[in-house]
Amino acid sequence: MSVVKSTLPESAQKVVGQALQSTLVDLLGLSLIGKQAHWNIVGPRFRSIHLQLDEVVSTARTFSDTVAERSAALGLPPDGRPETIAATCTLPGPKDGWLKDTEVVQVIVDALEAAIGRLRERIAATDEADPVTQDLLISITAELEKQRWMFDAENWPRDN
Amino acid sequence: MSVVKSTLPESAQKVVGQALQSTLVDLLGLSLIGKQAHWNIVGPRFRSIHLQLDEVVSTARTFSDTVAERSAALGLPPDGRPETIAATCTLPGPKDGWLKDTEVVQVIVDALEAAIGRLRERIAATDEADPVTQDLLISITAELEKQRWMFDAENWPRDN
Amino acid sequence: MSVVKSTLPESAQKVVGQALQSTLVDLLGLSLIGKQAHWNIVGPRFRSIHLQLDEVVSTARTFSDTVAERSAALGLPPDGRPETIAATCTLPGPKDGWLKDTEVVQVIVDALEAAIGRLRERIAATDEADPVTQDLLISITAELEKQRWMFDAENWPRDN
Amino acid sequence: MSVVKSTLPESAQKVVGQALQSTLVDLLGLSLIGKQAHWNIVGPRFRSIHLQLDEVVSTARTFSDTVAERSAALGLPPDGRPETIAATCTLPGPKDGWLKDTEVVQVIVDALEAAIGRLRERIAATDEADPVTQDLLISITAELEKQRWMFDAENWPRDN
Amino acid sequence: MSVVKSTLPESAQKVVGQALQSTLVDLLGLSLIGKQAHWNIVGPRFRSIHLQLDEVVSTARTFSDTVAERSAALGLPPDGRPETIAATCTLPGPKDGWLKDTEVVQVIVDALEAAIGRLRERIAATDEADPVTQDLLISITAELEKQRWMFDAENWPRDN
Amino acid sequence: MSVVKSTLPESAQKVVGQALQSTLVDLLGLSLIGKQAHWNIVGPRFRSIHLQLDEVVSTARTFSDTVAERSAALGLPPDGRPETIAATCTLPGPKDGWLKDTEVVQVIVDALEAAIGRLRERIAATDEADPVTQDLLISITAELEKQRWMFDAENWPRDN
Amino acid sequence: MSVVKSTLPESAQKVVGQALQSTLVDLLGLSLIGKQAHWNIVGPRFRSIHLQLDEVVSTARTFSDTVAERSAALGLPPDGRPETIAATCTLPGPKDGWLKDTEVVQVIVDALEAAIGRLRERIAATDEADPVTQDLLISITAELEKQRWMFDAENWPRDN
Amino acid sequence: MSVVKSTLPESAQKVVGQALQSTLVDLLGLSLIGKQAHWNIVGPRFRSIHLQLDEVVSTARTFSDTVAERSAALGLPPDGRPETIAATCTLPGPKDGWLKDTEVVQVIVDALEAAIGRLRERIAATDEADPVTQDLLISITAELEKQRWMFDAENWPRDN
Amino acid sequence: MSVVKSTLPESAQKVVGQALQSTLVDLLGLSLIGKQAHWNIVGPRFRSIHLQLDEVVSTARTFSDTVAERSAALGLPPDGRPETIAATCTLPGPKDGWLKDTEVVQVIVDALEAAIGRLRERIAATDEADPVTQDLLISITAELEKQRWMFDAENWPRDN
Amino acid sequence: MSVVKSTLPESAQKVVGQALQSTLVDLLGLSLIGKQAHWNIVGPRFRSIHLQLDEVVSTARTFSDTVAERSAALGLPPDGRPETIAATCTLPGPKDGWLKDTEVVQVIVDALEAAIGRLRERIAATDEADPVTQDLLISITAELEKQRWMFDAENWPRDN
Amino acid sequence: MSVVKSTLPESAQKVVGQALQSTLVDLLGLSLIGKQAHWNIVGPRFRSIHLQLDEVVSTARTFSDTVAERSAALGLPPDGRPETIAATCTLPGPKDGWLKDTEVVQVIVDALEAAIGRLRERIAATDEADPVTQDLLISITAELEKQRWMFDAENWPRDN
Amino acid sequence: MSVVKSTLPESAQKVVGQALQSTLVDLLGLSLIGKQAHWNIVGPRFRSIHLQLDEVVSTARTFSDTVAERSAALGLPPDGRPETIAATCTLPGPKDGWLKDTEVVQVIVDALEAAIGRLRERIAATDEADPVTQDLLISITAELEKQRWMFDAENWPRDN
Repeated sequence: MSVVKSTLPESAQKVVGQALQSTLVDLLGLSLIGKQAHWNIVGPRFRSIHLQLDEVVSTARTFSDTVAERSAALGLPPDGRPETIAATCTLPGPKDGWLKDTEVVQVIVDALEAAIGRLRERIAATDEADPVTQDLLISITAELEKQRWMFDAENWPRDN
Repeated sequence: MSVVKSTLPESAQKVVGQALQSTLVDLLGLSLIGKQAHWNIVGPRFRSIHLQLDEVVSTARTFSDTVAERSAALGLPPDGRPETIAATCTLPGPKDGWLKDTEVVQVIVDALEAAIGRLRERIAATDEADPVTQDLLISITAELEKQRWMFDAENWPRDN
Repeated sequence: MSVVKSTLPESAQKVVGQALQSTLVDLLGLSLIGKQAHWNIVGPRFRSIHLQLDEVVSTARTFSDTVAERSAALGLPPDGRPETIAATCTLPGPKDGWLKDTEVVQVIVDALEAAIGRLRERIAATDEADPVTQDLLISITAELEKQRWMFDAENWPRDN
Repeated sequence: MSVVKSTLPESAQKVVGQALQSTLVDLLGLSLIGKQAHWNIVGPRFRSIHLQLDEVVSTARTFSDTVAERSAALGLPPDGRPETIAATCTLPGPKDGWLKDTEVVQVIVDALEAAIGRLRERIAATDEADPVTQDLLISITAELEKQRWMFDAENWPRDN
Repeated sequence: MSVVKSTLPESAQKVVGQALQSTLVDLLGLSLIGKQAHWNIVGPRFRSIHLQLDEVVSTARTFSDTVAERSAALGLPPDGRPETIAATCTLPGPKDGWLKDTEVVQVIVDALEAAIGRLRERIAATDEADPVTQDLLISITAELEKQRWMFDAENWPRDN
Repeated sequence: MSVVKSTLPESAQKVVGQALQSTLVDLLGLSLIGKQAHWNIVGPRFRSIHLQLDEVVSTARTFSDTVAERSAALGLPPDGRPETIAATCTLPGPKDGWLKDTEVVQVIVDALEAAIGRLRERIAATDEADPVTQDLLISITAELEKQRWMFDAENWPRDN
Repeated sequence: MSVVKSTLPESAQKVVGQALQSTLVDLLGLSLIGKQAHWNIVGPRFRSIHLQLDEVVSTARTFSDTVAERSAALGLPPDGRPETIAATCTLPGPKDGWLKDTEVVQVIVDALEAAIGRLRERIAATDEADPVTQDLLISITAELEKQRWMFDAENWPRDN
Repeated sequence: MSVVKSTLPESAQKVVGQALQSTLVDLLGLSLIGKQAHWNIVGPRFRSIHLQLDEVVSTARTFSDTVAERSAALGLPPDGRPETIAATCTLPGPKDGWLKDTEVVQVIVDALEAAIGRLRERIAATDEADPVTQDLLISITAELEKQRWMFDAENWPRDN
Repeated sequence: MSVVKSTLPESAQKVVGQALQSTLVDLLGLSLIGKQAHWNIVGPRFRSIHLQLDEVVSTARTFSDTVAERSAALGLPPDGRPETIAATCTLPGPKDGWLKDTEVVQVIVDALEAAIGRLRERIAATDEADPVTQDLLISITAELEKQRWMFDAENWPRDN
Repeated sequence: MSVVKSTLPESAQKVVGQALQSTLVDLLGLSLIGKQAHWNIVGPRFRSIHLQLDEVVSTARTFSDTVAERSAALGLPPDGRPETIAATCTLPGPKDGWLKDTEVVQVIVDALEAAIGRLRERIAATDEADPVTQDLLISITAELEKQRWMFDAENWPRDN
Repeated sequence: MSVVKSTLPESAQKVVGQALQSTLVDLLGLSLIGKQAHWNIVGPRFRSIHLQLDEVVSTARTFSDTVAERSAALGLPPDGRPETIAATCTLPGPKDGWLKDTEVVQVIVDALEAAIGRLRERIAATDEADPVTQDLLISITAELEKQRWMFDAENWPRDN
Repeated sequence: MSVVKSTLPESAQKVVGQALQSTLVDLLGLSLIGKQAHWNIVGPRFRSIHLQLDEVVSTARTFSDTVAERSAALGLPPDGRPETIAATCTLPGPKDGWLKDTEVVQVIVDALEAAIGRLRERIAATDEADPVTQDLLISITAELEKQRWMFDAENWPRDN
């Protein structure tokens, strides 16, 4: 007997569980990447991007909580421990040390694009299995796409 | 020439830099451990401890930001990337999957005690090098000792 | 001529109307069941669950208002009178008098599971008829599944 | 031995218990009647009365909680389950379906007058038995009389 | 190379872009129509409808911002300039000068119904192309249908 | 020697003092008239106008305080005692007892028009004597003219 | 037929009506007296008493509204017009012009004592007729007695 | 001549003064007992009861202020000095050192029951002497009886 | 007979009406221009100017409401319909599509300067006709001149 | 070419620039004088005046910012550096060290009167040159005259 | 085995425990003394000092909680029971009955000076034993010294 | 006899008094320098640095108040008059007139570094004399070092 009962049929649990677990890892990774850039950025746009990064972090932290609790709600224990993030997060991140403001913008655009691409796959994958989870993934995608635009617009012209 | 200038003499930078970097890793680790327990706890005290854990996470997140920004302020770039946390955080943490409420209390008491022991060493180590950093470490210790007590009091009698 | 015009084609009104009316009755029933338990609970977990129940009641009241107004917005007058709830609500509820805390947790898990099961049927039923109503039912399900988990986690081990 | 001890002598418990239980049912009935009218009202005064009804509902819900908790506080378990309300609430209520704004005003004036008449009887009845409960009934009457006036003033001239 | 990159495949961009651009124009038009009525209404229901219109305006403004930013986020620059609204907005609006309260209600019901009808077509059109955009259109429809009901209920009996 | 010194030359004190004293009496009178109507109104527009009247009262009270303190600031003691208001306020007011909603609207339009007419005279009169006082009278006029419009628009068609 | 129906038997209406009408006049008078002193006070305690007087005014205004609405709620139209206050208010008040701070304290103590003495008579008078009105008069007395003490304590030693 | 004048006849002052002075001591004692338990509690219900105790302390502090100021308002100087509390407070309290959570619940139930019993005697005693003071004692009793219930419900089954 | 009566003499109505109507159109135009730039801006200063533009929009929206209601208050119905703005607004605005940040700053400086120039003419024109309207135009000018400075300072050196 | 363009004709810039620069210096001087007195006051009215002084400081700081930004908005760089204040501020201020409360009141009355006298001259001087700047100077005068009264009233009888 | 484990070595526990326990008693004593004066003060400065005393009480209550919880956090159960305060608090306090305002100021200065003197000894005593506790004692001293100054400044000239 | 008594021994007063007085002058100077730059900055980073400077000003103002009140609390009257700041402040500041954004960043970095260097000397100097004052100086240093970093990071690469 499972510890927390699932309201999903067993057939649906695997795809939904994988979608939520990998989204959790991406969001926790994104929150740590965002903070790393927030602390190490240097350059004339320091303050503006320093503040913008905290919006990424805040979004990533809030949604990571929603995603992990959705997983638990479906009887599937989420895993957000440091070693799990380090081992399974595939988002590109910043190098060690100070980061130029132009580098930071590119790093965040890249990380958000990777996260969005994977989310769109999971939206398709969960369509049959659980429209409730799918709806959550759609909300996360909408917000990350908005934040990606705001960094990409800041990134123009790209050879800046 | 360094990117961000330090207001500390070079002789003091090493001990202060190490104290802040290892405190940063401990606090980020604690925030992830706290959330993991927040999501996976089961048992009759679920709600009470679920809420209490968010106070640990909130404390750890707020102080991790202060510590990293103090490091940057001293010209020493902080490192809070996932791989750094996974590689250098030495706090004991929870196992994978659901966690019984009594287990959670013990896990958090153990993690907080490890963090506090290390903080007290750094308070002594930074006394000469930088009283400003030392004052921050004292504040963190005061708050973590308060939270440790609240879990330890909850843990009694220990063979519960 | 109808009193309030519907923006739905007539063919869609029946399934959507039934979905909304029965959801309304379930949510009003749930709000009354939640308050009954809130007032009559006794036992060592009194305070924690007493507070948790008010979150169920608050959720049920807020969504019952949204559901009833959605029905009216589609030109279909909702019915939430006491006699209608008593006659058509099929959620299992508590017995008369004081209720042990462990009983309360089980009563709420059972009521939420019944409500969720019926909501998932209505999500499927309204997919073609009205994606706007379906989206509302998905939101309600997400929230009730979260609350169900928090009581079920508290309920473990079940023979407690 | 009773589950929750009463601070009232046994002789006083019956009259006070009946006063509180019937007030609870009236207030829960009133909250459901108010919402039914809030959702189904049509006519040129729709918005004004739609909003005014939510003040009735808010008052009824808040006082129903206070009344039920006062009953519990006296060791007398309150009963606010749907079937109890449907079976014992004697307030006149609205018919099914859309309601003209003028009808709604009359329905609410009638329901409030019935509730007030019964409250004034209970104020007299509890005078000896428990001045603390009596004081609560006086507060509820003051508020319902104020709301009755505001609907009655709106109802003039009555043949409108 | 586009200025802001799109996360949508090129095939999807046209239908999504058209849906967002025409929704933007409708919402900006609605916000201006709502304010025009808010300022020019006369009659015994002046205050009630004057206030209700500001809720339409507030909704229209908030969603127009979300829609335009969604378009930008997909690499498609939105166009909300005065001449574009005047040239492409097809919602029926009020005549010049003072407006009787009964006329205002009818004008707003008509404008909302036109907007809703077009939104429901776009919900269908974007289903394949972008579920994230579709979800936004569903949210807008839900809110506009609610506001349409509140004016339509106020409009009864229609020959008023 | 005066008790509180004036920053105005003696020649200017008389006209400014009279302008402020008569404005004070008008505003205190208006606040009492507004409350009288707020309490005694009956009719189908009861709630809407009952609330609107409190905005008149709030405006009148706030400005009466500013006007009286402006007078004191100029070394001219203001007089707002009941007998002074009764003896010198020339605004038309309501009769005793219940007031029909249509009557109330007319009463308030009349009182506001009388107050505005007198304020416009004082704006002209204080132009030379004290531009600071004049600026205050302009602010009061702007607000009262706005409130007058909102009652007058509600009053249409006047033979209602 | 009365305009607004009373929930009191006719026999009780007269004593309750008189109690409420004379309390209304006292409170409105007190609010005007308090403001007059607030504006005209001079002396070393200016600021402290200037602020304290606004608490008297705020109390008097709030309770005057409650009292007038209680009267209306009982079907008895209240009368708070300037001429009524001037003609029937018997509280002693301040003279014209600047007022020394020591005088102000005495004026307010006297006005409050007069108001309290009359309220205590009305508490006795309404005991049988309407316990709901009596409860309101008790609340007003409690607050005015508190404010009286704070001025009386300030007034010591009285020959100051 | 007394320092602060009383609005009560001399005959009433003694019984009212005693009722208020002994209530003050009980409430100050209760606030100290509540804090002592708040700090020294241990056991699995630590957090839940730790928080609940602060509601007792907050209630006791707020009412102690109201009671002492009521006494002063009647010209009777209250006495809440440490030595007075220690000498005259008769509520049972906790022993020195750590307190098991089950002990704490019993200690608070006992203290609240003692306080309530004495308050009900004073309600009866002040009925003739001062209905304003009696009304305050009724309010305190209502709140303490509510808090007593919440601890008593938590205390069940008592041999826990 | 006019619908809403004017408190201005007929001779003054024309100049005041024209001043208010053309200010209304400028402010509504400015609000749409500001949002267009807010959505379409790209370049390294994206975030800073994106936020700054919302302050322009907020100012323009708030003042457009005040201006239109001032016109209505003077019995002159304002016209803010899309076709009126497109036909009569003469402020220079942005081109279609993405806008470089440097272009945006210039566009807004130009639009604000055009609006300010026209406002200063209207301040002179309304001096005799209506000092109340003039005072409003002065307030708008003060705020727009402040915003113009903040964009112009950002625009330096202009060949940037 | 000027750095920030002016919307004023060159002929007007000199008088407006001088009015704003000298007002800025007076307000910054006043804020420092107010704080000096706030810190060094002694005597029985310490607390009351200590608090009142912070209102002077807050007013002076807020208006100094508005005045300096108005100057910049007109293309005229303001100068608020310490050496400029010390060299050009002509307001009388306090001596070094502790200040008796009666001295403080006189110092502030003197400083405010000097500031007001100079402001009234600048109101006259800017009438033609810039009504927008004049309007700001009028607002500052109104507020400073209010504060002057409150200290002057406190100062009575002056030989105190 | 201790109930709550200490993070301090045993050697440090005694000095830290004594410092915290005696500080707790001083702060609880101060909070009771402050309230006693708050209730019993009479004289022309009543209101100002009555309010100032509540800041002392609020400070004392907040720090007493922090101190007691720090003691518990170190495994040392604090004792704040009435009999402990009465027996061990050595701060001088007020006599019974009404207190003249000048007496009150002296009483509070004396109590704060006694408390500060003892705190400065404990700051020295805990320097080696626990810098975290020392830091808390420093914070309390800073706040009490600030409050002492504000009463001492009010106390001047002392023979007042 | 001193006016305000000191809780420090005389031997400690001189070093502590000098440390506080010179810190006060630095902070007041910094607040004026920060505002000067806030008003006169021009260049593409105008808005971002304009806002950042207000955080410097806010910090400097808040700490200047704390420092001056700490001085007064120790019986040492602080001196923050304009002439004292101008004569004794040694922080480097901006030149007259418009300031390029890059210049502003350098000016603030230089001023903060000068202030920090002097604060660190005073931290050492007050260690023996008064740990309470030292703790305040440590807090100020922590905050100024954080703000220095944020400007220095913005300043990179320095030859920008």
